[in-house]
Amino acid sequence: MPSVRYRRFLTGVVAVLSLAVAMAAPAQAPQASVRPKVVLQMSESDPAKWNLALNNAKNIQTDLGAANVDVELVAYGPGIGMLKADSIVGNRVDEAMASGVKVVACENTMRAQKLTQGDMLGKISYVQAGVVEIMQRQQQGWAYIRP
Amino acid sequence: MPSVRYRRFLTGVVAVLSLAVAMAAPAQAPQASVRPKVVLQMSESDPAKWNLALNNAKNIQTDLGAANVDVELVAYGPGIGMLKADSIVGNRVDEAMASGVKVVACENTMRAQKLTQGDMLGKISYVQAGVVEIMQRQQQGWAYIRP
Amino acid sequence: MPSVRYRRFLTGVVAVLSLAVAMAAPAQAPQASVRPKVVLQMSESDPAKWNLALNNAKNIQTDLGAANVDVELVAYGPGIGMLKADSIVGNRVDEAMASGVKVVACENTMRAQKLTQGDMLGKISYVQAGVVEIMQRQQQGWAYIRP
Repeated sequence: MPSVRYRRFLTGVVAVLSLAVAMAAPAQAPQASVRPKVVLQMSESDPAKWNLALNNAKNIQTDLGAANVDVELVAYGPGIGMLKADSIVGNRVDEAMASGVKVVACENTMRAQKLTQGDMLGKISYVQAGVVEIMQRQQQGWAYIRP
Repeated sequence: MPSVRYRRFLTGVVAVLSLAVAMAAPAQAPQASVRPKVVLQMSESDPAKWNLALNNAKNIQTDLGAANVDVELVAYGPGIGMLKADSIVGNRVDEAMASGVKVVACENTMRAQKLTQGDMLGKISYVQAGVVEIMQRQQQGWAYIRP
Repeated sequence: MPSVRYRRFLTGVVAVLSLAVAMAAPAQAPQASVRPKVVLQMSESDPAKWNLALNNAKNIQTDLGAANVDVELVAYGPGIGMLKADSIVGNRVDEAMASGVKVVACENTMRAQKLTQGDMLGKISYVQAGVVEIMQRQQQGWAYIRP
C-alpha cells in the first residue's frame, strides 16, 4: 500500500533530519562550555617580553588548572631568540613545557637566521611558519594573546 | 486508527525538529548581525600606549554608536599603572567609563606589585587574572585588540 | 482526501527542514575546511615593525598559497606612516598589493594627522575607523595578528 511506503519514507527522512540536527547542536552550545585554549605569540627580542609571556602562561594555568586549558607559545621573527639553547629564559621555558605548555619555533625564521634544531632548546616543537600556526589556531577557536 | 496516531507522532517530531532548526539558525546567521564586542588589552607601561588604547575605545564608540557596542579594557602586567589613582590618564579613563567602557584591573598583577583597591581609580572592575579574562572574552565571540 | 493534503503538508515541511539543515551544516563543518583569512594590524611607527608585518604577510602567502588565503593589513594610529607616499617600505607595500594583500588606511587617523588621500600610496583602500575594521573582521571569523 502506498501509504505504508510513504510512512516509511517520511520516517526515514525524519530520522536523517533528527541526526543532522543532533550533529548541528554543538555548534550553538553555550560558549562557556568551550574548552579554554590559547595561543601566545612571541615575536619580540626583548627578554622582558619573554618573561611576561611566560608569566601569562603560568597565570592562565594557575587560574584555570593546567589540566583544563591548552596553552601554546609560538616564537617567530625577532622572538626566536627566546627558544635558542642559550636563551636567558631557557629554564623557565623548560618549566613551562614540564607543566604542559606546548612551545613552538618557526622554521622560516630559523632558516633566515641560519639556526638549526641543534641550536635550540630541547623538547620544543617546530612548525614551518609560526604566523600561520597562530592564524590556524585562532580559526580553530583558540584565543590569541600577544603579550 | 493507527494512521491518526502516526500523523500525530510525525507532527510532533516535525514540531520538535522545527524548533531545533530555529534554535540552531542563529549559529549560521550572517556575521554582520553579531553585536560588536571588543576587549582591549593594556599590558604596557608606556603612557602613549594608554592614550592609544583610549583613542581606540573612543573611535569604536563614535563609529558604531556607544549603545551598539560592548568595549572592555583589561589592564595587567606592566599596564596596571594605567589604572592607579595617580595615573596620568586617570581623567580619560573616568570619561571612558562614563561613556560605557568597562575597565578591568588584574588582581594577580596588583598582588605582585603590592597594590590594593585603595590604590586604584574608583569605579573600575576587578578580575583575578586579566589574561584569562581576555582569553574568555575571545572564546565568547568578542574581538580582541592589542593596541 | 485529507490524507493526501496532509501528506503534501508533511512533504513540504520536510523539504523546508531539509533545506534549513543543509544551510546550517556549514556552521559545524570541521574548522580545517574554513578558508584562511587574517587581518594584520599596524599601529606602530617603527619601520622594523612595518617590515615584520610585510614579512608575515609574505610568509602566510608562501605557506598557504596566495590564492588560498585572504590577507588584509590595516594601518592606523602611529602606524599610518607605513602607507604615506614617502613611506620607506612603499615598494614592499606595492609588492604586497600586487600579490593580493589588501592594504587599508584609517581615515580617522588621517584626519587627525591632516593627511589626504593624495598624501598616501596609490591603490590602497580606506576605512573610516581602522580599529573597527579589525574588530569586524575578527567577528566575521578572520584570524588577527598584531606583529
